[in-house]
Amino acid sequence: MEVVTKKVEVCFSPALFNYYQNPEAIVVVVDVLRATSAICAAFMNGVEKVIPIGTVEEAIEYKNKGYLVAAERDGFVLDFADFGNSPFNFTANRVKGKTIVYSTTNGTQAINIASSCYSVVIGAFINISALSNWLKKQQRDVIIFCAGWKGRFSLEDTILAGALTEKLLESASYETVCDSALASLDLWYVAKPNLLVYINKTAQRNRLKKNGLDDVIEYCHTPDITDIIPIYTNGFLTAITQ
Amino acid sequence: MEVVTKKVEVCFSPALFNYYQNPEAIVVVVDVLRATSAICAAFMNGVEKVIPIGTVEEAIEYKNKGYLVAAERDGFVLDFADFGNSPFNFTANRVKGKTIVYSTTNGTQAINIASSCYSVVIGAFINISALSNWLKKQQRDVIIFCAGWKGRFSLEDTILAGALTEKLLESASYETVCDSALASLDLWYVAKPNLLVYINKTAQRNRLKKNGLDDVIEYCHTPDITDIIPIYTNGFLTAITQ
Repeated sequence: MEVVTKKVEVCFSPALFNYYQNPEAIVVVVDVLRATSAICAAFMNGVEKVIPIGTVEEAIEYKNKGYLVAAERDGFVLDFADFGNSPFNFTANRVKGKTIVYSTTNGTQAINIASSCYSVVIGAFINISALSNWLKKQQRDVIIFCAGWKGRFSLEDTILAGALTEKLLESASYETVCDSALASLDLWYVAKPNLLVYINKTAQRNRLKKNGLDDVIEYCHTPDITDIIPIYTNGFLTAITQ
Repeated sequence: MEVVTKKVEVCFSPALFNYYQNPEAIVVVVDVLRATSAICAAFMNGVEKVIPIGTVEEAIEYKNKGYLVAAERDGFVLDFADFGNSPFNFTANRVKGKTIVYSTTNGTQAINIASSCYSVVIGAFINISALSNWLKKQQRDVIIFCAGWKGRFSLEDTILAGALTEKLLESASYETVCDSALASLDLWYVAKPNLLVYINKTAQRNRLKKNGLDDVIEYCHTPDITDIIPIYTNGFLTAITQ
């Protein structure tokens, strides 16, 4: 039986997504610090639905309609919002069974950009094994889409892209000839022996530290806290039931 | 005496250049396989002036006006052109004292995009030490601008960016907090012990091999063949006289 291999590609910024566009691919959106880690945590704690939106104006509109709103810019909770962007915000007593509207500096825009592809799921260290196992069952091309920082390349998203690429390439069903995927993989091998020390040098880690928001770094780099895989369909995220 | 440190940043694609834009910076344009290596080789062999242009239409116009034209797309010489994109094309007997109009898939567009900054110079492995020594004398921020491949990230340009970043950071005058520069540096450390074996896996190396154009790989990764530094001023490149 012929093995049909599927491609793994990595896109480093929303501004590059056009060059990686593939309508047949599943896109994994990655914003490790902190949007996609927080979204996974919210679903783990029982949120029913997350509506990712781009602009602050939309977030305010939803708030005025009575929705619970998570909204952050440059790491800070916007004053009208119920939640910011820390995974620790989304505790079960606050989110269980609820719908949350979510707007962040980088992550939620990436979800919307990716929605032209076959499907869009949410990736983080905290759900990495469940995600890679689920992806392997789908037998589709995969684009790992790093949200980056305001269009710029982000090292922590790239490290996660490398870790996920490694897991996918363990299966004979995947191959890659994508320079970004190869670079991510090599950077992951450099970071892997001491991930938290490595992440310490990233720009976003330093931004969060400067703003006293770095309590989430270790949590966001802990693998497999949850089996939840959020998927984007018809304008909102729900948890895939497996 | 206070040491005023200057920033080193790396931009991975022309589509990201807006996010790294800095009018005070010197931009080093990098397209290792093959445009910037070929431009350095041409100046080493005595070309007087290179006019980098974007489109094939412009290249044809210049040809019709009687200019010598180097024009390539996807690695292939365009049929009206006098030269393609191989550094081996630009021999002294063909280029000495001449002006050449140059249009390539990625590199010449990057030069034009970068021209809004303080100055634009051409970087390659074949001029890396001369270039880094010259940069250190300028005491300005440096953006290493990888031309990439049709907007996508390119590993061989990134490896050169890392090698140049390493040389600059040897001087106390430079620092970096740029994730792309840190990633380039780590990838360079991975590649450095056996550069040609490492480069063997890149997408562009495989494109060139497939098209029988890979005779230039070793040359383009050989450091310090020349001390020439091409600089872009008023619409054309000339060699900096030191």
